[in-house]
Amino acid sequence: MSGNIVTSSTPALKADVLLEALPYIRRFVGRTVVVKYGGNALAGSSDGDALSLFAQDIVLMHAVGMKPVVVHGGGPQISALMTRLGKVTEFRNGLRVTDAETVDIARMVLVGQVNPQIVAAINVHGPLAVGVSGADAGLIVAAPRDADLGFVGDVTSVNPSIVNRLLNEDLIPVIATIGSDASGQAYNINADTVAGAIAEALGAEKLVYLTDIEGLRRVVSDAASLIRQTTPDELDALMADGTIAGGMIPKVESCVKAVRNGVGRAHILDGRIPHVLLLEVFTDDGIGTMVHGGGE
Amino acid sequence: MSGNIVTSSTPALKADVLLEALPYIRRFVGRTVVVKYGGNALAGSSDGDALSLFAQDIVLMHAVGMKPVVVHGGGPQISALMTRLGKVTEFRNGLRVTDAETVDIARMVLVGQVNPQIVAAINVHGPLAVGVSGADAGLIVAAPRDADLGFVGDVTSVNPSIVNRLLNEDLIPVIATIGSDASGQAYNINADTVAGAIAEALGAEKLVYLTDIEGLRRVVSDAASLIRQTTPDELDALMADGTIAGGMIPKVESCVKAVRNGVGRAHILDGRIPHVLLLEVFTDDGIGTMVHGGGE
Amino acid sequence: MSGNIVTSSTPALKADVLLEALPYIRRFVGRTVVVKYGGNALAGSSDGDALSLFAQDIVLMHAVGMKPVVVHGGGPQISALMTRLGKVTEFRNGLRVTDAETVDIARMVLVGQVNPQIVAAINVHGPLAVGVSGADAGLIVAAPRDADLGFVGDVTSVNPSIVNRLLNEDLIPVIATIGSDASGQAYNINADTVAGAIAEALGAEKLVYLTDIEGLRRVVSDAASLIRQTTPDELDALMADGTIAGGMIPKVESCVKAVRNGVGRAHILDGRIPHVLLLEVFTDDGIGTMVHGGGE
Amino acid sequence: MSGNIVTSSTPALKADVLLEALPYIRRFVGRTVVVKYGGNALAGSSDGDALSLFAQDIVLMHAVGMKPVVVHGGGPQISALMTRLGKVTEFRNGLRVTDAETVDIARMVLVGQVNPQIVAAINVHGPLAVGVSGADAGLIVAAPRDADLGFVGDVTSVNPSIVNRLLNEDLIPVIATIGSDASGQAYNINADTVAGAIAEALGAEKLVYLTDIEGLRRVVSDAASLIRQTTPDELDALMADGTIAGGMIPKVESCVKAVRNGVGRAHILDGRIPHVLLLEVFTDDGIGTMVHGGGE
Amino acid sequence: MSGNIVTSSTPALKADVLLEALPYIRRFVGRTVVVKYGGNALAGSSDGDALSLFAQDIVLMHAVGMKPVVVHGGGPQISALMTRLGKVTEFRNGLRVTDAETVDIARMVLVGQVNPQIVAAINVHGPLAVGVSGADAGLIVAAPRDADLGFVGDVTSVNPSIVNRLLNEDLIPVIATIGSDASGQAYNINADTVAGAIAEALGAEKLVYLTDIEGLRRVVSDAASLIRQTTPDELDALMADGTIAGGMIPKVESCVKAVRNGVGRAHILDGRIPHVLLLEVFTDDGIGTMVHGGGE
Amino acid sequence: MSGNIVTSSTPALKADVLLEALPYIRRFVGRTVVVKYGGNALAGSSDGDALSLFAQDIVLMHAVGMKPVVVHGGGPQISALMTRLGKVTEFRNGLRVTDAETVDIARMVLVGQVNPQIVAAINVHGPLAVGVSGADAGLIVAAPRDADLGFVGDVTSVNPSIVNRLLNEDLIPVIATIGSDASGQAYNINADTVAGAIAEALGAEKLVYLTDIEGLRRVVSDAASLIRQTTPDELDALMADGTIAGGMIPKVESCVKAVRNGVGRAHILDGRIPHVLLLEVFTDDGIGTMVHGGGE
Repeated sequence: MSGNIVTSSTPALKADVLLEALPYIRRFVGRTVVVKYGGNALAGSSDGDALSLFAQDIVLMHAVGMKPVVVHGGGPQISALMTRLGKVTEFRNGLRVTDAETVDIARMVLVGQVNPQIVAAINVHGPLAVGVSGADAGLIVAAPRDADLGFVGDVTSVNPSIVNRLLNEDLIPVIATIGSDASGQAYNINADTVAGAIAEALGAEKLVYLTDIEGLRRVVSDAASLIRQTTPDELDALMADGTIAGGMIPKVESCVKAVRNGVGRAHILDGRIPHVLLLEVFTDDGIGTMVHGGGE
Repeated sequence: MSGNIVTSSTPALKADVLLEALPYIRRFVGRTVVVKYGGNALAGSSDGDALSLFAQDIVLMHAVGMKPVVVHGGGPQISALMTRLGKVTEFRNGLRVTDAETVDIARMVLVGQVNPQIVAAINVHGPLAVGVSGADAGLIVAAPRDADLGFVGDVTSVNPSIVNRLLNEDLIPVIATIGSDASGQAYNINADTVAGAIAEALGAEKLVYLTDIEGLRRVVSDAASLIRQTTPDELDALMADGTIAGGMIPKVESCVKAVRNGVGRAHILDGRIPHVLLLEVFTDDGIGTMVHGGGE
Repeated sequence: MSGNIVTSSTPALKADVLLEALPYIRRFVGRTVVVKYGGNALAGSSDGDALSLFAQDIVLMHAVGMKPVVVHGGGPQISALMTRLGKVTEFRNGLRVTDAETVDIARMVLVGQVNPQIVAAINVHGPLAVGVSGADAGLIVAAPRDADLGFVGDVTSVNPSIVNRLLNEDLIPVIATIGSDASGQAYNINADTVAGAIAEALGAEKLVYLTDIEGLRRVVSDAASLIRQTTPDELDALMADGTIAGGMIPKVESCVKAVRNGVGRAHILDGRIPHVLLLEVFTDDGIGTMVHGGGE
Repeated sequence: MSGNIVTSSTPALKADVLLEALPYIRRFVGRTVVVKYGGNALAGSSDGDALSLFAQDIVLMHAVGMKPVVVHGGGPQISALMTRLGKVTEFRNGLRVTDAETVDIARMVLVGQVNPQIVAAINVHGPLAVGVSGADAGLIVAAPRDADLGFVGDVTSVNPSIVNRLLNEDLIPVIATIGSDASGQAYNINADTVAGAIAEALGAEKLVYLTDIEGLRRVVSDAASLIRQTTPDELDALMADGTIAGGMIPKVESCVKAVRNGVGRAHILDGRIPHVLLLEVFTDDGIGTMVHGGGE
Repeated sequence: MSGNIVTSSTPALKADVLLEALPYIRRFVGRTVVVKYGGNALAGSSDGDALSLFAQDIVLMHAVGMKPVVVHGGGPQISALMTRLGKVTEFRNGLRVTDAETVDIARMVLVGQVNPQIVAAINVHGPLAVGVSGADAGLIVAAPRDADLGFVGDVTSVNPSIVNRLLNEDLIPVIATIGSDASGQAYNINADTVAGAIAEALGAEKLVYLTDIEGLRRVVSDAASLIRQTTPDELDALMADGTIAGGMIPKVESCVKAVRNGVGRAHILDGRIPHVLLLEVFTDDGIGTMVHGGGE
Repeated sequence: MSGNIVTSSTPALKADVLLEALPYIRRFVGRTVVVKYGGNALAGSSDGDALSLFAQDIVLMHAVGMKPVVVHGGGPQISALMTRLGKVTEFRNGLRVTDAETVDIARMVLVGQVNPQIVAAINVHGPLAVGVSGADAGLIVAAPRDADLGFVGDVTSVNPSIVNRLLNEDLIPVIATIGSDASGQAYNINADTVAGAIAEALGAEKLVYLTDIEGLRRVVSDAASLIRQTTPDELDALMADGTIAGGMIPKVESCVKAVRNGVGRAHILDGRIPHVLLLEVFTDDGIGTMVHGGGE
C-alpha cells in the first residue's frame, strides 16, 4: 500500500508496531495538528505519488481521532501559470511585486488548482476533506505589507471559526493561503506564516512543516549537527547569528512564535521521506527537528 | 444604497413596503432558497455593480432568516482563459470535448476565480459566505457522459451534508459546479443541472435561475406571451413542441424535475433587473416566470 | 395594509426601502427590545386601529429575528371600571390610595382586559403572543411603597426567567404590570418603571416608550427644541431644573437608569404616528428622542 | 400544616405513610396530571383555606416529579361581577346568551381574577405557577356554538405547545378556559370540556375533576351505590338512561372521551374533602369514582 | 410494607405526613446524599430485613428526586471468610497486617459479596442500583499507609466522574471501598474515611453514617447528653479531650472534614431504628447527631 | 512493549503496518466489539502476562475509537475457592448442582476476584474500565434452568442500557456473568451464552471468543481442516453430526445465534497467541475461525 518494497512483517512485528503507536494515539486523540504542505512537494512529484502518500498519512491521523488541518501554498504553480500567460514578474528586495492581475492569478492557482488536488487526493479515502480559502467566512484578514509591493499581504487577524466548525463535523480542512481585507480584495500571503498563525488561533497541539531538508543544523555545513530538539530561545540565537537564513526564516519564526503562544510542539520534517508524517506522529523514531517550550 | 436614482420615500411609503414584505419573511424564514447565478451575469458586469447588487439581495435574504445557497457556473470565464493559454476547443454535437488539461482549467476558473469573486462580494457585508467545490466532502459525484467528450460529466448523486452543515452554522454556501468521481478525477458539469439537483437534495423551498431573458414565453416572438405562472406539465409540452429550446432546456428541465420532486417553486427571472431577487422574494409584484406544482 | 393612503411604490423604491432596513435587521437580530405600550394609546383608539398597527410592527420585528417584549399599563381602563362599580378613589400626594378591592380591580383590568386585547391583536398574525402577569413564576416581586397608600408597590426585584424562557421559544411576551409579594398579595405598580426594570433585567438592546408627545424638549414651550439625541447626564439636569416634570418623570428616570445599567438605547416616541415603532427601528429617519450612553 | 387537628403520628406511622406513597411516586414521575378546579370551590371558600390546601397538593405533586396542570372556570365569579355591573343575563335552553360585553366580562374575571388567585396560592411555595389564557399562543381555538347564543364557543382545536413548553421548564400551568378564533375574538367555553380536551392533547396520565359530590352513583338516591371504578361503556349507559344528568354531563362526557383517547385514568373526586387530590394520588385509599379503559 | 405493626393511619394523618415531607423534598431535590452503610448492620441482620428496610429508604429518596450514593465496608464479612480459609491475622497497633492474599480476600468480599447483596436489595424495586468498586475508572486512588502494614491504604485522591455519570443517568451507585494505585494493586481502606472523601468530591448536600449507637454524647456515660446538633469546632474539642474515641474517630473526623469542605450537613444516625434514614430526611423529628457549619 | 523478542522494524515496515491497519480502523470506529475472555486464560497465566497483553489489545481498540466490551467467566477460580472452603460439588448430567452457598461463592469469585483483576489490568493504561455485574441495573435477568440444579440459570432477557451508558461515556465495561431474578436472587450462567446474548442486545459489530484451540475443524483429527470462514448453516450441520461437541457447543451456538440476529461477524480465536485480538482486528492476516452471514 505504501509503495515501498519491504520484507513482509511477521505477526509479532505487526503487534509491536501497533502497540508502539498506542501511547501516541492516546495522547493526540481529539487534538489539532496543523500540517504545512509545500507547493514544492506537490510540484516535485512527477506522478502524484508523494501527494498520495501524504494523503494516506493525513487520513490515518484522522481515522484514529486526531484533527488534522492542511495548509498549503503554491509558489511554483503560480510562477508556471504566470509564465504561460506571459506575465513577467518584477522583484523588489526579493519580494514579488504583485499587481491586481497577479493576485488574481495567485488566487486562481492556490484556490482553484493546488487546493482541489490535495482535497481530491484525500477524498479518495472518503468524503473527508473540504477546501477552504482564507477569504471564506473571514478566515484570514490581511493588510498590505508595503504600498510598493501591491497586493502582498500580512496577516492582520485569523478568525478560525469556519475551521473549528469543519473540525467539529469531523472533516479535514485544506486551507489555501489567500487573505482578504474588508473590501473583499485578495492578498497573497506567505503560506508558512499563515500556517503558524492558524495553529496559534486553533490552539493546535502540533505544527508541522514538511520541507525538502532533513532538519535544522547547528552548523550549516555539518550534516552531523542536525538538531533533534530545540527551544525558541536557541532558534532566536541561530537566526540572530545567521545560521538559519533565507527561506527557512518564515518557518522557524512561525515555529518560535507558535510554541511561545501555546502550540505544544512544532516540527520541521523532511517531506521527501515517504510517510514521514506518520513516522513522526506514531513511532518512537526521532525525525527532523522538534521545537518545544524550554520548560520541558 | 441600491445605486438607483429614486424619489425618496415618505415614512408612510416605507412602512407600506416593509409591511408588504412581512408575510413573505414569515413564510420563508428558515427555508432554503437555491439561486443559480450565471457566469454571464458576472462577465457582463463591467464594473462588478451587478454582482454587488446581487450580493445585497442574498445578504438581505439571509438577514431575515432565510437560507440562501448560491450555485454558479463560469462558461465565459473558462473560454477566456483557454484563449489566453492558446487552447483550441473542439466541439462535438455542440458539446466541448474536455481533455484533462481543459477540465483542470475549468476547475481552476470556477473554484479559483469565479467562486472567490462571489464570496468576496458577499463577505463585504460580514464573514457570511463560504466557497464550496463540488469535490468538497463528496458533494457532487459525477460520471462521464460520453467517452468521446472526455471529462464532461453527469451528476450521479448529490451528498448535501457539507451544505447542510454550513447552513446550520448560518453561513451562505457558494457552490462551484465541479463534480468528481471516486478516484478524485474532476468533471465539468452543466451548472443549471447542478443547481436543480442541489435544490432537490436540500429539499429547498425555492429554486431561482437568474437569466438574461425576461422570462419564458408561450409564443417565442410575442413579448406579450410572457408566462407568469406555469406547471411542469405545460413546460413539458412547450419543450416537446420546440417553443422552449437551446440553452433554456437545462434550466427548464431542472425546474420541472425540482418541482416534481418536492421543491416548492422554481423561478426564471431576468437577472438584468437590479435587485430582481429581492423584488421577487419580498414584494407582491409578479416577476419573470414561476413554476409551481399543478395542484395549487 | 397599513391603512394609509399612499402613492404606490415603484420596484426601485421598494428595493431601496428594504435595503435601508438591512443594516438595522442585521444589527438587531436576536436582540431584545422592550416596548412600553400605554393604556392611553389603547383607550384613545376608538376602533382598535392603533392597536392593530402596533401589533403589525411588533410582528414584523419578530419576523426578522428580534425579540420584542411588550409591557403595558391600563390606568384609564382601571378608572373606568372603578367608576362603573361605584368605587370612589382617594388621592394622597397625587397617588391613589389602593385598598384591597382596588388592587383586585386593577389586577382584573390589567391581566384580564388590557392584556388579552393586546395578545389577541398580535395573535391575529399567528400563535405568537403569550400574556404574562408579574405574578407568574415570580416575575415581579413588589413591596409596599407607603403604608398609607395600601397596595401601591415598588419593584423589589425582577426574576426574568419566565420571560427568557418564552423568548427562547420564539414567543412574544406581553406583560401586565402587576407585582406580588411572597405571600401572593398583588400590588399596583407604575408601568413605566416596570418596563425599565424588565429591560434592565433582560439586558435589552432597546427600551421604547410609546407616548402621546412628539419627544422631549429642551424648552417646554418651543417645539423646535425637540431633543433628538441625549444622554443620562443631560436628562438628570433637565429633571433637576424642572424642564422635565409630571408624568414624564417615571419614563425619563427609567430611561436614564436603563441606559446606565447596560440597555443599549432608550427611546421616547410619539405613539400617535402610525407605525412609529417600525420607522424608528428599520429606517434612517430620526424619530422622537433617543437616549444613549454619553461615550458614543 | 394541613390545618386539621390530628393525633400526631409516631415515627413508625410516618414511615408507613411515606412508603405507601412510594409506588405511586415512582409510577407517576414525569407524567402529566390535569386537574379541573371549579369556580364553585373557590367561591365557596370563605377564607381561601380550601384554595390553600389545594395549592399544597399541587405543589407536592410537582415536588415529587409529576407535571400537574390546573384548569379552572369561574361561573359564580362571572355572575357576581355581572350583577355588580347591572348586567341582566338572558337564558335560552339553559345557556346564557353571551353578548360582546358579557364575554369581555367573562374573560376579565377568568383571566384577571380567578386565574391570578390560583397562581398566587401556588406561588406562596415558590415561583412555580404561570397563568395561561386559552388565547395565549393559540392554545384553545374556538368557534361559535349557535349564532343565537353569541360568544358561547365550542373547542375547535387545542394547540398544547405553550403548555408543553412550560411543563418542560418545570413550571405549573394554570389555564383560564377562554377560547379565541382566528380574528382574536374571545369565546366563553365550558371549563369541564376544556379540561378534557387539554388532557387529551397533552396525552395526560390522569384527568381529575374536583366536584362537590362524593362521586357518581349507580342509583341516584342511594349513597351506597357510589361507583368506585367504572368504564366508558358503563358511563355511556348511565348517561343514556338518565342516571347521570345535568351539570355532571360535561364532566362525565369528558372523562369518557379522554379515557377512550389515551388518557390513563379519569377521576371524579369530592373537592370538599381536605387534600382529596393528595389522598387519591399518593395513598391506597379508594376515593371518589375512577374511570379506566375497560380492558384492565 | 415497612414490616412494623402500626395502628393504621387516617386519611388526615396521611395527608399531614406527606405535607410534612414536602419542604424536605423540595429542599433536597437533585441533591446528592452519601450514606455510609456498615458491614455490621448487614452482618447483624439475621434475615436481611434491616437491609430491605434500608433499601426502601434509598429508593424513596431516589423516587422523589434526590441522588443517593451508598458507600459500604464489610469488616465482619472479611473476618468470617478469613477464618473459613484458615488465615490468621496479625495486628500491629490495632491495624491488621494485610498481605497480598488478605487484600485479595478483602476485595473479593467487599466487591463480590457485600456489594451485590446491597445492589440486589435495591434492585428488587427496579433496575436502579449499580455496584461500583473504587478501582473502577480510577474512582479511589490509594497509597500504602505504612510499609509494615502491607496493603492498608490511605486515600490519595478521588476521581468521582464515574459516580457523577451514573448519577446523571438517574442510577444509584453502591460503592465498595477498595482503592487501587497506578499499577492496579488493590488496597483495603477505612470505609468511613472513603465515605467522607466521596461526599466531599461529589459536593454532597448530606453525608450520613448509619451506626449502632444512638448518636454522639457530650458525656459518655450520660444518655441524656446526646448531642442533637454540633459543629466541627465542638467535635474537634470532644476528640481532643477523649470524649469521642475508638471506632467513632474516622466517622467524626470525616464529618468534620466534610462539613468544613462544603458538604452541607453530616449525620450520625442509629441504624438500628427501622427507616431511620427516611425519618431523618423527610420528617421534622430530630434524630441522632447532626453536624453543620458553625455559622448557621 | 509486547514482551516478544523481535527483529526491530524499519521505518518503512512500520509505515506499512500502520497503513495496513487503516481500513480496519475506519471500518470499526464507533462499533461495538464484545470479547469473551475465559477464566481458563486467566488461570493458565502463571504471572499475569497473558492478561496484560490482552489488556493492551483492548486499550488499543479503544484508543482508535472502537467500543470494546469484555465478558468473562471464571470456572477454574470458582472451583479453586470451593475446594479451599471444603465444598464438594455434585454433578447431574454434567451440570454442577448449585445450592445457595455455591452461587454466593460463584458470585464472589466472578464479581470480586476475576472481574477486578481484568479491570485492574486495563486501568494500568488509564481510568478506562468499569466492572459490571449482570445484577447491576437489571443487565441480565435470569430464570432457573431446572429445579434439581438449584441456582443454575438461563438468560431470560438482557437490558443493555447500563452498558450503553458506559460506552457512551467512552468507558470499557467488563462484565461478570452473574444473572439475577426479580427477587434479587443470583444465578450462575454460562459465560459463553451471556457473551452472545450481550452482543445481540448491543447490536455489536463483532463477537469474539478467545479460546485455547486454534479454531474449529471440519475433521476433528485433521489440523489441516481448520475452518477459516463459515456460516451459521454449516455450523448447524457440524453440530448435528457431532463434529462440534462438548464445551464448544455454547460458543458455537452463540456465534450462530448472534450472526443470525444481526451481529456482523463472530470469531473463535486462539487466545494463546500473543495479541491475537489485535492481529485479528487490525491486520489482513487470517486468524482462527470467522462466522459470517451466508449472504456475503
